[in-house]
Amino acid sequence: MLSKSQISLLTSLQHKKFRRENGLFLVEGHKSITEFANSPYRIHTIYHTPGNAPKLLNLSRKINFQEISLNELQKVSALKNPADALATVYLPEDTGLSNKQLQNKFTLVLDGVQDPGNMGTIIRTADWFGITTIICSEDTVDAYNPKVVQATMGSLARMSIHYTDLKAFLQSTNLPVFGALLNGESIYRTNFGNEGLVVMGNEGNGIRPEIEPLVSHRVTIPRIGGAESLNVAIATAIFCSEVAGRSLK
Amino acid sequence: MLSKSQISLLTSLQHKKFRRENGLFLVEGHKSITEFANSPYRIHTIYHTPGNAPKLLNLSRKINFQEISLNELQKVSALKNPADALATVYLPEDTGLSNKQLQNKFTLVLDGVQDPGNMGTIIRTADWFGITTIICSEDTVDAYNPKVVQATMGSLARMSIHYTDLKAFLQSTNLPVFGALLNGESIYRTNFGNEGLVVMGNEGNGIRPEIEPLVSHRVTIPRIGGAESLNVAIATAIFCSEVAGRSLK
Repeated sequence: MLSKSQISLLTSLQHKKFRRENGLFLVEGHKSITEFANSPYRIHTIYHTPGNAPKLLNLSRKINFQEISLNELQKVSALKNPADALATVYLPEDTGLSNKQLQNKFTLVLDGVQDPGNMGTIIRTADWFGITTIICSEDTVDAYNPKVVQATMGSLARMSIHYTDLKAFLQSTNLPVFGALLNGESIYRTNFGNEGLVVMGNEGNGIRPEIEPLVSHRVTIPRIGGAESLNVAIATAIFCSEVAGRSLK
Repeated sequence: MLSKSQISLLTSLQHKKFRRENGLFLVEGHKSITEFANSPYRIHTIYHTPGNAPKLLNLSRKINFQEISLNELQKVSALKNPADALATVYLPEDTGLSNKQLQNKFTLVLDGVQDPGNMGTIIRTADWFGITTIICSEDTVDAYNPKVVQATMGSLARMSIHYTDLKAFLQSTNLPVFGALLNGESIYRTNFGNEGLVVMGNEGNGIRPEIEPLVSHRVTIPRIGGAESLNVAIATAIFCSEVAGRSLK
């Protein structure tokens, strides 16, 4: 049975402001909850319907369990069809990024990505290709938005996400900065080397003008047919494939 | 002013059964309507709000125009926030596919893709890479579903889509059949040559067991990180990039 204040807390976590205030975010469904329980993230409470307490959890750390009815779950879930369980998970502290953490690997940089579905798909795709860090402009959609968490299919548990002043960050880095831009070198001819930042822009407007001069390598996915643009999650996937996948060849 | 029977027709076109019965589908928004007007598709009627009749149309062909109120547009639109105009467009006749049409190019084959957003993104991405034909199993989501049409961002106007008995079709072809499957050759090592079919499977289940033996080349996008799977539109994009984009190198 959920108390009024629990219902109020859980529904408030659909909003970024209250996630920040409470230091918690929502993860729904057994599968995702299990991935978070077995990751560096710390779970606060798992609310589950009768008989549906998630198994296979890392129980070396304290997790509260509370049984609730399906009706209650539907009331506090951010999903249309909530599954079996919902967990509150502690927002990770952003301990900052050292240059060393970014060496000898590729890191995604998102400049104003807005759509939660795109963000979730980008995190899931980056995880597939072994990219473990994503740096976001302050106005990029919050990765702990329930729609994003859902769309990552558990991959968020393995991803280190940082929100920062992108301009200052890019001014301070010595790494190559590849940017998805028009009129750049073909992605198929670009030598990405073995490290760097890959900047992807906003859905409608691309990389913003104040960030563009900080891109050291303009890279373009050549257009052959008639579409005006590629979806940003699709373009990001093709970059991930080129910088991380192809190196496995 | 829309008549009752017009409202009934327009809202019915959100369902496949009535699209087939009436031989029409819906296209919303100026930009998409203009792409269809300037394509081999034939527009029946454009319903537009005052002052919003689409311009730049190919008017060598007869198109009916009808002014309606925003209120009426909202009533018949399949979108949450309808724009300015909605058109009924004739469903193309499926005149079948000759082997010759498929030679010296790559064609996508979809085996049971279900999500309208994925289907729309696949059509948009294929269009970007100059792939002009998509062959679908009978149970693949209808490409003329308003959510698919919307997600293609106009690219559907340039795409030839065929629904067919996939098993019979693949049994009859002499083209190489590449299939996105686990335990195949790495996509980065695969020699795709200059023609073939690229089969992508259902979101949850992949390529179905009765189709799998008809795949002549199993191809895998190697996994480096922890994600369990890639979204089908993302995987399709990486295949398009390899078979069509890379050849431009």
